[in-house]
Amino acid sequence: MNDLRPPPPLLYEPIVEAALREDLGRAGDQTTDAVVPADATATARLVARRAGRVAGLPVACRAFTLLDPRVEVDLRAADGEDVAAGATLALVSGPARPILSAERVALNLLGRLCGIATATREVVASVAGTGARVACTRKTTPGLRLLEKYAVRAGGGSNHRFGLDDAVLIKDNHVAVAGGVAEAVRRARAGVGHLVKIEVEVTNLAQVQEALDAGAEVILLDNMAPGMLREAVALVAGRAVTEASGGITPENAAAVAASGVDVISLGWLTHSVPALDVALDIVVG
Amino acid sequence: MNDLRPPPPLLYEPIVEAALREDLGRAGDQTTDAVVPADATATARLVARRAGRVAGLPVACRAFTLLDPRVEVDLRAADGEDVAAGATLALVSGPARPILSAERVALNLLGRLCGIATATREVVASVAGTGARVACTRKTTPGLRLLEKYAVRAGGGSNHRFGLDDAVLIKDNHVAVAGGVAEAVRRARAGVGHLVKIEVEVTNLAQVQEALDAGAEVILLDNMAPGMLREAVALVAGRAVTEASGGITPENAAAVAASGVDVISLGWLTHSVPALDVALDIVVG
Amino acid sequence: MNDLRPPPPLLYEPIVEAALREDLGRAGDQTTDAVVPADATATARLVARRAGRVAGLPVACRAFTLLDPRVEVDLRAADGEDVAAGATLALVSGPARPILSAERVALNLLGRLCGIATATREVVASVAGTGARVACTRKTTPGLRLLEKYAVRAGGGSNHRFGLDDAVLIKDNHVAVAGGVAEAVRRARAGVGHLVKIEVEVTNLAQVQEALDAGAEVILLDNMAPGMLREAVALVAGRAVTEASGGITPENAAAVAASGVDVISLGWLTHSVPALDVALDIVVG
Amino acid sequence: MNDLRPPPPLLYEPIVEAALREDLGRAGDQTTDAVVPADATATARLVARRAGRVAGLPVACRAFTLLDPRVEVDLRAADGEDVAAGATLALVSGPARPILSAERVALNLLGRLCGIATATREVVASVAGTGARVACTRKTTPGLRLLEKYAVRAGGGSNHRFGLDDAVLIKDNHVAVAGGVAEAVRRARAGVGHLVKIEVEVTNLAQVQEALDAGAEVILLDNMAPGMLREAVALVAGRAVTEASGGITPENAAAVAASGVDVISLGWLTHSVPALDVALDIVVG
Amino acid sequence: MNDLRPPPPLLYEPIVEAALREDLGRAGDQTTDAVVPADATATARLVARRAGRVAGLPVACRAFTLLDPRVEVDLRAADGEDVAAGATLALVSGPARPILSAERVALNLLGRLCGIATATREVVASVAGTGARVACTRKTTPGLRLLEKYAVRAGGGSNHRFGLDDAVLIKDNHVAVAGGVAEAVRRARAGVGHLVKIEVEVTNLAQVQEALDAGAEVILLDNMAPGMLREAVALVAGRAVTEASGGITPENAAAVAASGVDVISLGWLTHSVPALDVALDIVVG
Amino acid sequence: MNDLRPPPPLLYEPIVEAALREDLGRAGDQTTDAVVPADATATARLVARRAGRVAGLPVACRAFTLLDPRVEVDLRAADGEDVAAGATLALVSGPARPILSAERVALNLLGRLCGIATATREVVASVAGTGARVACTRKTTPGLRLLEKYAVRAGGGSNHRFGLDDAVLIKDNHVAVAGGVAEAVRRARAGVGHLVKIEVEVTNLAQVQEALDAGAEVILLDNMAPGMLREAVALVAGRAVTEASGGITPENAAAVAASGVDVISLGWLTHSVPALDVALDIVVG
Repeated sequence: MNDLRPPPPLLYEPIVEAALREDLGRAGDQTTDAVVPADATATARLVARRAGRVAGLPVACRAFTLLDPRVEVDLRAADGEDVAAGATLALVSGPARPILSAERVALNLLGRLCGIATATREVVASVAGTGARVACTRKTTPGLRLLEKYAVRAGGGSNHRFGLDDAVLIKDNHVAVAGGVAEAVRRARAGVGHLVKIEVEVTNLAQVQEALDAGAEVILLDNMAPGMLREAVALVAGRAVTEASGGITPENAAAVAASGVDVISLGWLTHSVPALDVALDIVVG
Repeated sequence: MNDLRPPPPLLYEPIVEAALREDLGRAGDQTTDAVVPADATATARLVARRAGRVAGLPVACRAFTLLDPRVEVDLRAADGEDVAAGATLALVSGPARPILSAERVALNLLGRLCGIATATREVVASVAGTGARVACTRKTTPGLRLLEKYAVRAGGGSNHRFGLDDAVLIKDNHVAVAGGVAEAVRRARAGVGHLVKIEVEVTNLAQVQEALDAGAEVILLDNMAPGMLREAVALVAGRAVTEASGGITPENAAAVAASGVDVISLGWLTHSVPALDVALDIVVG
Repeated sequence: MNDLRPPPPLLYEPIVEAALREDLGRAGDQTTDAVVPADATATARLVARRAGRVAGLPVACRAFTLLDPRVEVDLRAADGEDVAAGATLALVSGPARPILSAERVALNLLGRLCGIATATREVVASVAGTGARVACTRKTTPGLRLLEKYAVRAGGGSNHRFGLDDAVLIKDNHVAVAGGVAEAVRRARAGVGHLVKIEVEVTNLAQVQEALDAGAEVILLDNMAPGMLREAVALVAGRAVTEASGGITPENAAAVAASGVDVISLGWLTHSVPALDVALDIVVG
Repeated sequence: MNDLRPPPPLLYEPIVEAALREDLGRAGDQTTDAVVPADATATARLVARRAGRVAGLPVACRAFTLLDPRVEVDLRAADGEDVAAGATLALVSGPARPILSAERVALNLLGRLCGIATATREVVASVAGTGARVACTRKTTPGLRLLEKYAVRAGGGSNHRFGLDDAVLIKDNHVAVAGGVAEAVRRARAGVGHLVKIEVEVTNLAQVQEALDAGAEVILLDNMAPGMLREAVALVAGRAVTEASGGITPENAAAVAASGVDVISLGWLTHSVPALDVALDIVVG
Repeated sequence: MNDLRPPPPLLYEPIVEAALREDLGRAGDQTTDAVVPADATATARLVARRAGRVAGLPVACRAFTLLDPRVEVDLRAADGEDVAAGATLALVSGPARPILSAERVALNLLGRLCGIATATREVVASVAGTGARVACTRKTTPGLRLLEKYAVRAGGGSNHRFGLDDAVLIKDNHVAVAGGVAEAVRRARAGVGHLVKIEVEVTNLAQVQEALDAGAEVILLDNMAPGMLREAVALVAGRAVTEASGGITPENAAAVAASGVDVISLGWLTHSVPALDVALDIVVG
Repeated sequence: MNDLRPPPPLLYEPIVEAALREDLGRAGDQTTDAVVPADATATARLVARRAGRVAGLPVACRAFTLLDPRVEVDLRAADGEDVAAGATLALVSGPARPILSAERVALNLLGRLCGIATATREVVASVAGTGARVACTRKTTPGLRLLEKYAVRAGGGSNHRFGLDDAVLIKDNHVAVAGGVAEAVRRARAGVGHLVKIEVEVTNLAQVQEALDAGAEVILLDNMAPGMLREAVALVAGRAVTEASGGITPENAAAVAASGVDVISLGWLTHSVPALDVALDIVVG
């Protein structure tokens, strides 16, 4: 985890900036501008109200410095680190107005990303020892995929495709249109470049065999019971990467992973995870 | 609920378009382009896998027609409507490629917005008879505030501020800097226009009285136990709108609302609600 | 006036940057690039050719530093300050090219904003002693509302709504569609959140009473003669904010304000005010 | 005037769209959405309350159809046409909500552009018979240069440079840096392409001669009294275009033009002109 | 070639629109607006002055309809088709102004994309029978990668990575930092998701063996002479995809391909290819 | 050449930034992030593999510092300078990751711009002594016109129009619609401002005379043989600028220029020039 870094600012700053604009609206923070003197200063603690895994801390704190470069942020935790309830994540100091005005944007980003990392960490822990990677899907929040995928990595998970263009995933509908797994894989192989991996979704062992014969590099075992998963893994015998998907939750993840699959993937990690409770406490007004 | 409409396309289309770009990446849908013939057509059902309250259906379906205007969408449910598990929400027909390529974006938007509406409806139901409105907060997903606030209305809830600029909400930190509730309200009154409402957050009955005397139009009763809430409501006696906030969940919402407050507000509605399970089934390939 | 600050750079810099791009076009400043050596330096005085009220000085000067961060700006006046003809507003020094190339953009912004502030100050002075606030409207220049509203505040005025979404203003057409003032106010109350203020436009005393009974928080007295205004104010008796609007000019503002209304609002302040004459004089070439 | 057309929609639609977003904010038109039923229809007249010259009518009306393509606009006047007070400029019909929501944006654009065209027409009329063209400058409203320059043409005027890159205008500061008119013109000639015209600003007859000798194609006679202007025109004798500028107002325009100059240019036309009073009257609710 | 389609308009229209804005500038087509009556119509032929392979025809023609939707385009050739010198590619008819104003943008796009497709086709032809795919690289024109990669496909070629994020390509510098091919591949395998393919650049046979042992899925044989290429292919023996790169030109492509590699890749295809000569001839004025 | 400077960063940075985003995609540089430690540093040499004329060096190097401001760039060559094969153009040092991640974007920009400058220099050299300027056209790469025109200047060439709006160029189609050269020029003169130059394209001597009589300021001699060019130049006799265009290549440029025309213009300079071979060599890893 020690070499985990957020994506380049060039990629995430537009998200933070858009979030600030969304919150500031046309007129800015009317409350703070009216109530807090322009020359007031403050120091605030960014704290985790509950224990969790940190993700997106430098990203969230960019809200303060994008609003006013005079604000100073002193990070006290690192992305990918586990913190206890009450832990100080960062100290934020400088002019009071931008600290108060950027607070909600920073917390909204941080709470969501830490929530995802924390949930991922739990699933990863639950499958420890099985050798299965825990991966997310494309079921992410519109506009936040980059950051949510990063939060999954911060939680110890692994990333599936970033989008429709960076790998082939042949799903049931594609198979139906193509008239079979083999023909679908053949078309994909002919149509895409040599740097694009091909995965195909299957629902039974016959399709697993068909996918293998067709040269699929990854086989998505969709909604299979643990027993059938085990058979599929045995059938594949290392000739392709195996991925279990469909209806996997923190509760059943260990059972699924025990089947010996290489990867388990959960949409739940990004579409239904609760935010971690984080807050900003003014220390010195 | 019968006059509920999504915001103007001018406001929500950029969100849908950005989500499509995020998923299509640089090269578009490599799988579909390679496997599905350009002239293939399809009809698909957008379905709710679980019962819930519909929200954002026209918004989500815009993903299909933004990607290809030849796709036709036939809505079978309305925003604000309750549907059973298995209900068809829309029929989508036309060229197969854009239907398959826009599927995930449409589902990601729809699942999230229906999830919020469904959760809101449940909280609203739980406080039925109390006279309390159920409101969301600014704890929304960055970039989606417009749509999430709309989903709350589709769930029968009401909206708090859309951002920092459309009303004054004096919080504890502002009170601390200003040196008291009365002075903070006074500064706000002097500093903002006559169309801006002023709310102040208080934590005890003395502050309630101070806020009333200062002319606050809305009083946010922060993290008060039901007993103190009841006293606060009695003290206010209709001279200001009362809002309970802080730690309210579906579980304790009814108890809070029973105190007689005008509004209860929950960040949970937008930051920690699970998505509704929605899917796209190809009917005719 | 001493705590007046421009909105956050995040909100106004895009306006300045767009103005620079509009003036630089595709090829930049062909004159300066051809005639002035790249290493020439200069110091220039930003001056007010006529007396007036300053507004937007830091905003306008951002044109120089956005074009070239090596330019240094030394502000010699503050927004909200009255200056005499010939007053130096700022000293601008550094590489000569960006100073000359950004000059027109800076002056166009500054002249317009000072013009609005100066005109506002005059109207404010003319109603001194009446207790009436002077407010602008939404009749602003497309793209500049944020800055024009700020200039009004720099002139001692107050802001009306920033847009269609931050307060309700029920106008004659809305009343007509709804079938009366009372019904329109009732619908608004039901349809918007508890942080949104409701104003209704009326044209006679019967409507004033109807608006009061319906619970309108602000009553816009449209195009009423001073006599009727006085009666309206008496009728309202402090139970709502009263605003006079329609055809108010610097000439009749005092007479209108003398009626005892809380606010007078003038579209003229933003749509028809002459620019203040400002210029840039090279001191040291 | 009969072939006057607005610039391509590709160029002006972003301005209209940005103005709509500025007014709609995050949440759209709260008043109309709450008070006017979604299925209500309306017909409205866009009217000139005062006599004037029309400019930007198709541009302003685009606000309605950009907000909702179902709105129909029936233009009753043409850009470049003179209309009497009370004249109907367009009929706007369709769903009532977008008509009411786009009204202010349409009027803000139209009032400003008609104001400029009307003022330009008056100056043009005042110099009739002199042979002088009436031109605007770069003293335009940030973001609206394209449309304001068009309005000047609709008023019968002519355009100066659109920006810093489409022609050379050597001003006093450039002359000072270069060490004289002749050297400045020489540098410009060497530095720019053969499709770029070169104008130089002069303040006395010696400089006029120097500019002529250096091959300037246009000579800007800055702030010269009519007598000196006449001498300058005689000196130039058709070998360059002559332009009078500096302090020209509607009052003194005729006197300046009588000097025989080819062009008179006025910043006043775009920075200080009052808007034309235009309004939207609902005819059928 | 028969199922070749341009990427979705959502992805390529911004490129065409930006090109139109770049050419129209602030003021639009001054020549056409002044010289061609607004109601003039025209029909024009888009022609290939030289023989070549068509690419980007629907994309280029979008310039006409984006500028004015009334223009009608009748395609007479298909992307991926070979045409003779003088061939009509499309008929463009409608209002004359937008046809003339969009001409250059359409031709600039079309000439470049057809140039790439034509050159690709020639290289593909030269390696016919060898089994080698012809691929482009990331040495594309900034902003046009999407379209240039498409043009390569239209020429019968194949695409390498679209960018830094959709596959791993470990180059010499990465190997040096990691301390060897094996360690670099190991780090990559651990750091990226299971849908990301890993390619490694090698310069000798020892590295080929090391890459194979480390499990690289694609091996880039950098700047190897045909003899060494043949040895490398024999060594790999189908256990990885082999790609020859570095200094490949149309002249030596056949010799390189004869080595038995799976892919040859040429930066030349996108960074140094001459445009195809295309033109627009007015048929009916 | 010593005062050659790139356009303001405000104009070129968006191009560099867009190129970085295009290459980084959604997920950034997966290879470098996985293989190179976050704290690794490096020094690299930007080198010219072949001799050529430098153009766009500060622009291209901005890719490194835009990606990470900690990278330091030490320029060792200047735009407009001729360098030998193997020459070091710049030293780039700092954190290794951004140096490797921005490498391709920097090289793509630099190779293209140096390629244009180098080709321009060669044509300029070939016409030395004739007095003819070498100019480019509007046949530029979509999105890069600003930079490509700059590269032409770096090569010693001159710029034609930057777009459709900054000068009038009446081409054959315009002449045909207008019914003759004289009428077309007359319409242009009447329709555009006094700072806009008028050029007209002619194909024979009669049209040259007609253009002269109509007052055209520049005459484009289209596709004329050297003999007719000489006659045209004699006919014009300095009363207008003469420009030869159409089918000019490096091979025939000298012959064309020998005719005595003022300008020769070549689309080839920007649409078909090979990139200069530039590379980044890591010096210290």
